Amino acid sequence: MNTGRTALPMLELVDVGCSPAALSDAMSAETATELARTLKALADPARLRVLSLVAGNDGREVCACDLTDPLGLSQPTVSHHLKVLVDAGFLQRDKRGVWAYYSLVPGALERVTDALPGGR
Amino acid sequence: MNTGRTALPMLELVDVGCSPAALSDAMSAETATELARTLKALADPARLRVLSLVAGNDGREVCACDLTDPLGLSQPTVSHHLKVLVDAGFLQRDKRGVWAYYSLVPGALERVTDALPGGR
Repeated sequence: MNTGRTALPMLELVDVGCSPAALSDAMSAETATELARTLKALADPARLRVLSLVAGNDGREVCACDLTDPLGLSQPTVSHHLKVLVDAGFLQRDKRGVWAYYSLVPGALERVTDALPGGR
Repeated sequence: MNTGRTALPMLELVDVGCSPAALSDAMSAETATELARTLKALADPARLRVLSLVAGNDGREVCACDLTDPLGLSQPTVSHHLKVLVDAGFLQRDKRGVWAYYSLVPGALERVTDALPGGR
């Protein structure tokens, strides 16, 4: 089936009222690729739960050691998800002694939601 | 290497100051799974560009036929991305004649951003 528009008979084009619209420019491919990469870091149930624990701690940092029990995940798994969230710019990490402490990067989530099309 | 907290000598625990924190409840696994699924629909460069074109059309619906050129994608590829965005609740679809017309579902993006941890 050829669904290309130019292959439609003129009568059908008139009938369905499809006319070339002057759409505004799409988000650039570069911006979309970068935003998609950031959203992929969020689009994981375990990482959303990690973020919810850090965000729910009233601005105080959270020790990685305190995340395993509430999430029911092993320390290596929690560490992996924390690293993805740090790399994506959502969390900041402070290593002290054998443990690392995490807090939200101020404004990081807002920058992502503001960048979404129609999300402002 | 055993990084489990209970395996650490007490001296180290005291030294690094890691104590059990009373973290508030994490986002439930069910909520996180559902939100992650919705975010995955967004986390794709082509779909972000589709959304940007629909969102940028001043509230008017957009014909699927008008999306191929600005995106440089084939009609089947555009249709696939449109279907994912409809299934995720971001776009609504009105089929008229041979073409389908798409518009933003009011409030859909806001509901997602409001559901993000720390995103309010």
